[in-house]
Amino acid sequence: MGADAQREAGQPLLIVLEETPVVGVPAALEEETAVAPAITMEIEEVAAAEQVVTPWEVSAPDGVIDYDKLVDRFGCQRIDAAIIDRIAHLTLCPPHRFLRRGIFFAHRDLNTILDLYEAGEKFYLYTGRGPSSESLHLGHLIPFMFTKYLQDAFKVPLVIQLTDDEKFLWKNLTISECKRLARENAKDIIACGFDVERTFIFTDLSYVGGAFYENVLQVAKHVTFNSLRGIFGVTHEDHIGKVSFPPVQAAPSFSSSFPHLFPGDDQLRCLIPCAIDQRQHARGRTVAWSTAACKRNLAKASTNGADLCAVATTNFAGWAFRLSSHARYVLVDPYFRMTRDVAPKIHLQKPSLIESRFFPALQGESTKMSASDPNSAIYVTDSSKQIKAKVNKYAFSGGQASVELHRKFGANLDVDVPIKYLNFFLEDDDELDHIKKEYKEGRMLTGEVKQRLIAVLSEVVARHQRARAQVTEEMVDAFMAVRPLPNMFG
Amino acid sequence: MGADAQREAGQPLLIVLEETPVVGVPAALEEETAVAPAITMEIEEVAAAEQVVTPWEVSAPDGVIDYDKLVDRFGCQRIDAAIIDRIAHLTLCPPHRFLRRGIFFAHRDLNTILDLYEAGEKFYLYTGRGPSSESLHLGHLIPFMFTKYLQDAFKVPLVIQLTDDEKFLWKNLTISECKRLARENAKDIIACGFDVERTFIFTDLSYVGGAFYENVLQVAKHVTFNSLRGIFGVTHEDHIGKVSFPPVQAAPSFSSSFPHLFPGDDQLRCLIPCAIDQRQHARGRTVAWSTAACKRNLAKASTNGADLCAVATTNFAGWAFRLSSHARYVLVDPYFRMTRDVAPKIHLQKPSLIESRFFPALQGESTKMSASDPNSAIYVTDSSKQIKAKVNKYAFSGGQASVELHRKFGANLDVDVPIKYLNFFLEDDDELDHIKKEYKEGRMLTGEVKQRLIAVLSEVVARHQRARAQVTEEMVDAFMAVRPLPNMFG
Repeated sequence: MGADAQREAGQPLLIVLEETPVVGVPAALEEETAVAPAITMEIEEVAAAEQVVTPWEVSAPDGVIDYDKLVDRFGCQRIDAAIIDRIAHLTLCPPHRFLRRGIFFAHRDLNTILDLYEAGEKFYLYTGRGPSSESLHLGHLIPFMFTKYLQDAFKVPLVIQLTDDEKFLWKNLTISECKRLARENAKDIIACGFDVERTFIFTDLSYVGGAFYENVLQVAKHVTFNSLRGIFGVTHEDHIGKVSFPPVQAAPSFSSSFPHLFPGDDQLRCLIPCAIDQRQHARGRTVAWSTAACKRNLAKASTNGADLCAVATTNFAGWAFRLSSHARYVLVDPYFRMTRDVAPKIHLQKPSLIESRFFPALQGESTKMSASDPNSAIYVTDSSKQIKAKVNKYAFSGGQASVELHRKFGANLDVDVPIKYLNFFLEDDDELDHIKKEYKEGRMLTGEVKQRLIAVLSEVVARHQRARAQVTEEMVDAFMAVRPLPNMFG
Repeated sequence: MGADAQREAGQPLLIVLEETPVVGVPAALEEETAVAPAITMEIEEVAAAEQVVTPWEVSAPDGVIDYDKLVDRFGCQRIDAAIIDRIAHLTLCPPHRFLRRGIFFAHRDLNTILDLYEAGEKFYLYTGRGPSSESLHLGHLIPFMFTKYLQDAFKVPLVIQLTDDEKFLWKNLTISECKRLARENAKDIIACGFDVERTFIFTDLSYVGGAFYENVLQVAKHVTFNSLRGIFGVTHEDHIGKVSFPPVQAAPSFSSSFPHLFPGDDQLRCLIPCAIDQRQHARGRTVAWSTAACKRNLAKASTNGADLCAVATTNFAGWAFRLSSHARYVLVDPYFRMTRDVAPKIHLQKPSLIESRFFPALQGESTKMSASDPNSAIYVTDSSKQIKAKVNKYAFSGGQASVELHRKFGANLDVDVPIKYLNFFLEDDDELDHIKKEYKEGRMLTGEVKQRLIAVLSEVVARHQRARAQVTEEMVDAFMAVRPLPNMFG
């Protein structure tokens, strides 16, 4: 069966692009990982020398991530013009610029949701955040901005999970600090403009239990340690909180986790807006199959219909280099792929996904924004002055080295961060097209583009800050109250 | 450091009694288990050829379990006459027959509890049950009968955990069936006479969350997968519910799990009455160290101060025989040993334990009562007629083969089940002594002892049935209400 036929049949796909032997993977490690695939996962791989997108890492050696390749290889579907038109038609709302510009560019089973919606059926939205820091940057707002659009356009309820438990388990934070951060983050989320009549925000530390805990158990009973090891790279030396958490992130995908919202309805479909990358959990260990192990497992997969998963992480000193020129097997959206795998086993609906590109760091697409480097991102707490300084100093330019050269050759938009940022935040399509054209053809200079970006970002951030300042403790309580939402589809 | 010195210093102890090489343990398995000890556990071992007491198995080849050996090897303390006197003195209550007769025979840190109690400080009791069946037998009632005595004598609050989540994870039961069984079992427990002013009964499916979930996370963050594998024998192929559950059983040991009972008090001491055996979780796999691995690990332990744990289970076809003449490393009370290990790491108090002997099956001490063999036990739902038939037909007799031989040699009380049962349930010490003397010296026949036992058991069971019939749904709700208990120390 060819790759396309496999994908079409909804079957898992595993391709070994490069078969260079892996140097330095001990035999024991190979054997260990060779037992991993006990769960049926939608799996793909990316050749490391080209680009790496794992749950834990994003890098693109030449500064450009090939999203077409991601879509092809990860078995999700492109969001094309037909889908965007359909959404506009169904919702009677103009499509969000994140759709128009291919920022939310991929999906799983979105058409199922749209078919049901067209037939008059309902669904709900689920998104969330791990509250590890008070400092949200613009990248953190992207899924919430888009989710607000979806909520307004489809008029559907939304659950927002704040995984304070996850942050306690993974970070060196106390439980009370995680709870405090969750509440602070909730204020930033509320400031994105969600409708309290349609939105339930919860933190795991306050909401795990009851019907939610039942779904956590259902998921846990259908995932083996081996699968988790394959998906998330957990090891024997990891504490068991890392093993018990993934079902907690899976549970909100099932409507029966929210009996106060959907009493008696355990089959309501869920749509999850998320970035195609997920989280930064596994650290300090590299797990990989050698080419030989890949072949063995590939052979196994083709004989028993099961498919394969493995994880490549590169943070353990030395391993990154050793593995850097060899095939890697990576997963995106691991939590929700696990969830989609388990759903039919527990007689519940698979959640649909709508997935976005990465919001790049100021330094470019080859890195992610990092809280440890405040100059890699624009924070929602930054002043106009800080925004101006960061953009001018750090935003990677695709312009030429001198005005003369720039006038002659124009800018390389593929790597230019100001243009990428404008693509996310400048609403006016015509103006954006104009800037891109002028800049590309050398008539506009980097400094001018940056100046426009500074104005746009300053406005976005100032608007957020004004909204955030108006969020009271009572509003947080109102969003977090465990309550029915009688007008949630109204 | 010698074994006694180690034990005295509160240090772990591991002794290899037999060093016969283990036949048939694959090298890979040895290596795998060799990495197990990541947690500091109180560990002991028993030579398999003599007796086996694991979390999952009880057997004594000659029908007699050597409890002295258990106490010696498992690092707990004997309950001696001085402790019993002290309890009577402190509580102004006559000691329960389970204490007088050495049925609750061992403890960990009970003296700490008594010291604090004498100084006017408080503690609370924690016990529980996994609700896997409606059919409770007399053995199930033992810890509850004794816990009721402790509650009445010390006038302390009690929390009773019904692990319906555990039964869902381990058994082929639906969540709703587990919830139903938990409620039915709660009625039997309430029928033991607990004081609703001092008792909080909860099921995990209804109570896990909030402060309780915080303690679950605290414990989970301090136990590695390797430790769990060592303690409970979980494998890579096991679902992760088996990994995430142990902290749920640990959490009730910490008073902060019950903020409605102990607001602001996270250091209140907990005393856990339990049988020295625990549960029947791991199945289908044998994990053991070879003698060589034992030596390696022993060497490691003595150099790094860590200690060792391993598990021997014998349910996997073939392994039991292969391993039967070799040293085994086993754990008792695994959940609470795990809990005691974690407690100081999360700055909470270690729970104290008070541990009972096994209540034997009708067929004798070499087997455990089993729900799959209704003739192995007296159920609380049995009629007098059923009790009479079971005792007469199945209760293993230590009497001689003929009346003549019996009159001459008398009964072997060490293996006689009617005497063992009377030891548990006949309140009158003088009568028990008289029966034992007459029976041992051949003047009393098995039939006469069984007749007395039938009367005693029939009365115990009939009393339970009367009490059970009076337990209403409202009473269950009252015990399960999440509420303060203002008179719990009154």
